[in-house]
Amino acid sequence: MKRETLLKRPNSMWRYRELLPVKNDCDIVTLGEGMTPLLRVPNAAKRKGLGSLWVKNEAQNPTQSFKARGMSAAVSMAKQFGIGALTVPTAGNAGAALAAYAARAGIKAYIFMPRDSARANVIESEQLGACVTLVTGLITDCAAEIKRQRISNDWFDLSTLNEPYRIEGKKTMGFELAEQLNWILPSSIVYPTGGGSGLIGMWKAFRELQAIGLIGPKMPKMFSVQAEGCAPIVREFNVSVKSADSQAGYNNRASGLRVPVPLGSPIILDILKKSGGGAVAVTEEEILSAIAEFGAAEGIFLAPEGGAAYAALTSLLKAKAISTDESIVFFNTGAGIKYLEWFE
Amino acid sequence: MKRETLLKRPNSMWRYRELLPVKNDCDIVTLGEGMTPLLRVPNAAKRKGLGSLWVKNEAQNPTQSFKARGMSAAVSMAKQFGIGALTVPTAGNAGAALAAYAARAGIKAYIFMPRDSARANVIESEQLGACVTLVTGLITDCAAEIKRQRISNDWFDLSTLNEPYRIEGKKTMGFELAEQLNWILPSSIVYPTGGGSGLIGMWKAFRELQAIGLIGPKMPKMFSVQAEGCAPIVREFNVSVKSADSQAGYNNRASGLRVPVPLGSPIILDILKKSGGGAVAVTEEEILSAIAEFGAAEGIFLAPEGGAAYAALTSLLKAKAISTDESIVFFNTGAGIKYLEWFE
Repeated sequence: MKRETLLKRPNSMWRYRELLPVKNDCDIVTLGEGMTPLLRVPNAAKRKGLGSLWVKNEAQNPTQSFKARGMSAAVSMAKQFGIGALTVPTAGNAGAALAAYAARAGIKAYIFMPRDSARANVIESEQLGACVTLVTGLITDCAAEIKRQRISNDWFDLSTLNEPYRIEGKKTMGFELAEQLNWILPSSIVYPTGGGSGLIGMWKAFRELQAIGLIGPKMPKMFSVQAEGCAPIVREFNVSVKSADSQAGYNNRASGLRVPVPLGSPIILDILKKSGGGAVAVTEEEILSAIAEFGAAEGIFLAPEGGAAYAALTSLLKAKAISTDESIVFFNTGAGIKYLEWFE
Repeated sequence: MKRETLLKRPNSMWRYRELLPVKNDCDIVTLGEGMTPLLRVPNAAKRKGLGSLWVKNEAQNPTQSFKARGMSAAVSMAKQFGIGALTVPTAGNAGAALAAYAARAGIKAYIFMPRDSARANVIESEQLGACVTLVTGLITDCAAEIKRQRISNDWFDLSTLNEPYRIEGKKTMGFELAEQLNWILPSSIVYPTGGGSGLIGMWKAFRELQAIGLIGPKMPKMFSVQAEGCAPIVREFNVSVKSADSQAGYNNRASGLRVPVPLGSPIILDILKKSGGGAVAVTEEEILSAIAEFGAAEGIFLAPEGGAAYAALTSLLKAKAISTDESIVFFNTGAGIKYLEWFE
């Protein structure tokens, strides 16, 4: 895999074939995921007083979120291993992505979502042939229900960081960032963090690109953005600031950020510290006004998670964690169109 | 523009720069539209008894539909001409696309939609900063309202085929089809037809590629698919079959197919005849079961328009208009996720 050879590769995350799992090409389950646009957003940059701002728009993936990458890799491996049924507890986007790739692979999908999940992901999963169970409670209750039902069912559980392949898919966001920026990483990456596997995956990707000599040694500052009401990474990063008790709970509507005890939290904290980055929480009001501001400025309807990342730029700048003259990429991990409940 | 030079071009419809309008690159308004996946769908092919079936999935465009292509081209030209305000009457997707590109260009957008339009497009257009007016009635009533308000407002009207550039954007679907199939066009193209500018644009694209020697002289059979309740092309194509009176009306829920008097209808009919193709109408029940069947088979949540195209394969095969051994591409012009009302 060289810079030039990549030019002739397929227009999807599978262009980085050598650095991805799956033994035989015929087991790759693809719907054209990855190679999402990385766009300069000068109007939004001006509003924030920044010089060079980019958005990586993951909404243009199959099932409209970055979860497609992880599920493409994980379901491909499930196909390789001959697994017949997959399950996942999910707040939404991971369920729709699993439904899509499982259907494409001819594998049964059992998806457990909280009853108050966004309707878009429930309907999409059902239309993609998955068996969807709505559970009264939180995502942890969904996980408990899976545990109960797995006893009598031969299901493989694709929960975040419970298996090694979803993160292999997600790391392709890092490969693409490097390739799309002509192999010079940005100065800062601002990433909305729920389970955090996207951030962990990207960090792994940069290390791999360094190991094969495709990029230099300089790593970007990594910033995690969470929503007030459920910001465990922010709380642990700023151990001195034990302020908002509510941050220990589940109390926010940005479903992709509603992970009170991220399994990968020690790894995430290590990356944030090593990179010279940090963690910041934003309010729901900040998210909503960020979505409207960015939409009118740049024509992209951010998901609440992407809105959180954009909103966080203001406090990061104020805290001097980022400066006006550096190149900054923030991630829109999903599509606003899937969260109509926020706007009705 | 040669086959090899294209390899190094941007991963969007603007890779076909020489065959697109816009004088200076700095006027191009882009959000990463085009280069959508063209996927082999063997599970669905098997269900239909077909040998080689492909879907071109336009849902992965900005604002989740092929309308992004036309608006990227038209808004770029509006920027070049220094136009300050744009307007369009729309059943939905064209409005969201205009809102996105106008925002990106810093141009005001005035969008007129029927009051019963899908909520997704209304909310998306609003979040992208457009001024949305809901009109009691049909898209023709929206057009009439624009005519009234334009007298006292300096708006440029981007109605279908009212200006030449949207179709220039849409023709890139034809360029991509050729490039993605290694410069050999399929035997048949099955396309959901409302205004028909996508079909007209593709035909133009094939002629252009022939003129510069990138493809051979063989053209595909072109098929228009419409929904019963509003199928003027089908009615005119089969002049002998003056059966369903309701086909003269607006009576179908597939909003992208609700165009009772397509401006381009003589051109469309000419293309269908010249190519050896045809026109066919499907029912709402057929659309709904096509969406569920294709979703479970291939993991893509078709829009009703895409569902109509997939559903039509059955009657086309029965009528021997297509055969089991030819290569067939059908278009999914939008995203199922924008039509939640169909499934609630």
